[in-house]
Amino acid sequence: MAMHRGPSPWEVSLWTRREASVSAVSAVLPRCRVSNDLKTAVEGAEIVVLCTSPHAIAGSGRSLAEIIPASTPVTDAGSVKTRIVAALEVSLGGRFIGAHPMAGSEQSGISAARPDLFDGAVCIITPTPQSNPQALDRVRGFWREAGCRLAEMSPAAHDKAVARISHLPHAVAAALVQAAISKNPEFGALAGTGYRDTTRIATGPEAMWGEIFLDNREELLAAIADLQTHIGELKNALSRGEREAVESFLRAAGTLRAREIG
Amino acid sequence: MAMHRGPSPWEVSLWTRREASVSAVSAVLPRCRVSNDLKTAVEGAEIVVLCTSPHAIAGSGRSLAEIIPASTPVTDAGSVKTRIVAALEVSLGGRFIGAHPMAGSEQSGISAARPDLFDGAVCIITPTPQSNPQALDRVRGFWREAGCRLAEMSPAAHDKAVARISHLPHAVAAALVQAAISKNPEFGALAGTGYRDTTRIATGPEAMWGEIFLDNREELLAAIADLQTHIGELKNALSRGEREAVESFLRAAGTLRAREIG
Repeated sequence: MAMHRGPSPWEVSLWTRREASVSAVSAVLPRCRVSNDLKTAVEGAEIVVLCTSPHAIAGSGRSLAEIIPASTPVTDAGSVKTRIVAALEVSLGGRFIGAHPMAGSEQSGISAARPDLFDGAVCIITPTPQSNPQALDRVRGFWREAGCRLAEMSPAAHDKAVARISHLPHAVAAALVQAAISKNPEFGALAGTGYRDTTRIATGPEAMWGEIFLDNREELLAAIADLQTHIGELKNALSRGEREAVESFLRAAGTLRAREIG
Repeated sequence: MAMHRGPSPWEVSLWTRREASVSAVSAVLPRCRVSNDLKTAVEGAEIVVLCTSPHAIAGSGRSLAEIIPASTPVTDAGSVKTRIVAALEVSLGGRFIGAHPMAGSEQSGISAARPDLFDGAVCIITPTPQSNPQALDRVRGFWREAGCRLAEMSPAAHDKAVARISHLPHAVAAALVQAAISKNPEFGALAGTGYRDTTRIATGPEAMWGEIFLDNREELLAAIADLQTHIGELKNALSRGEREAVESFLRAAGTLRAREIG
């Protein structure tokens, strides 16, 4: 949808795993070629974009290498980069350029498609010393045309950052749902926008998020440890009834968020 | 704004603490009477609604009792009810009916006013055996006309529920801001909608939230302890690399939220 906007729309060809999905996808995206045969889907492609689950992306290099020309650039949309980039540089070489658009929602499937999903979102591109410069340029151009602003860093720096800014929030939202309403589900009926917003992402697909968490577990565990420290600080201040400490905890968070997020 | 909609708009009179605010408030709400003198503000009122900070609400009973007729119903919008209801039943008697509309945002001040703020939000009314039935009816009618759906429970039951559904999410959002970006503020530039939504409420006014947290600290501490337990569960599953346990943690949260919140 995003690539069909603008004065020179792309020709988009989609691969979908299940044959049953082909007609559903075609109904939503009538201008796209849709197939559940990988060879048909990628035939003649000038760039290939891998948007399956993280483990499927990491495992897709060899079959892809057999059917696309050796010069075709390949990118992806996976949420953890070290493992994917290492695997695909082995099977595809320097024309694989890892990417992670920081866009999406708790929804999944073709019915969640939106043309403006990427508008203004940051896409983190993770080139390595092995990256082919022409492929890197093509991949940058692709994500920019989808609507993204670009950031670039190594796969390891990416995984450290998203552990904090994406994976930790998901983990916390899930824990918050349980701590808030698992003992008393009827409290859910009282929820205002605060609870809704803080927990929205917790309904995301658990199999995909399980892969993400395990692929990035060292960084995520470090982030969780920091969260525990901060929660512990607040708990101590509250236990001791220290109003100034409670306010200063809240003020530090509010100031930091206002300054860095806006 | 909410009370001025509909076929029979209310006459609304506002009290504001600072003289300097009178003209600013009048500019936003030209149909309201605005004064920084309490006696002028409440003169002739058929119902009085206390919307200041929790401690100011709890402390306002005696001066109010001196200037309004003994039968005028009084309600409030404070976030913790046990302390407020106890204090105001002493000074105002059974015509004080505690209430807590589960609406609002991280913004405060007159510039954040919106006519539809209460639409569809739950307002929790907290009557006690001491409550005057006529006052209770008037207060129910007021919040319903503001746009709220009503729920009723004791002040203690309210404080237990909102510790989970409102105060814990606020505490968690603040801790998450710090754990995610205090060491590396530059990660903030990568934030997508997930991080924005999970942390939005963390910029709320810290002095008010400090009062709320301390007034409800026993219940909030219990909620924080449960959060720590759930976070600990996830941490253990991740440390051990147990994919099924990680997925089942995420699935439990997603299922619970989808069922109870929608």
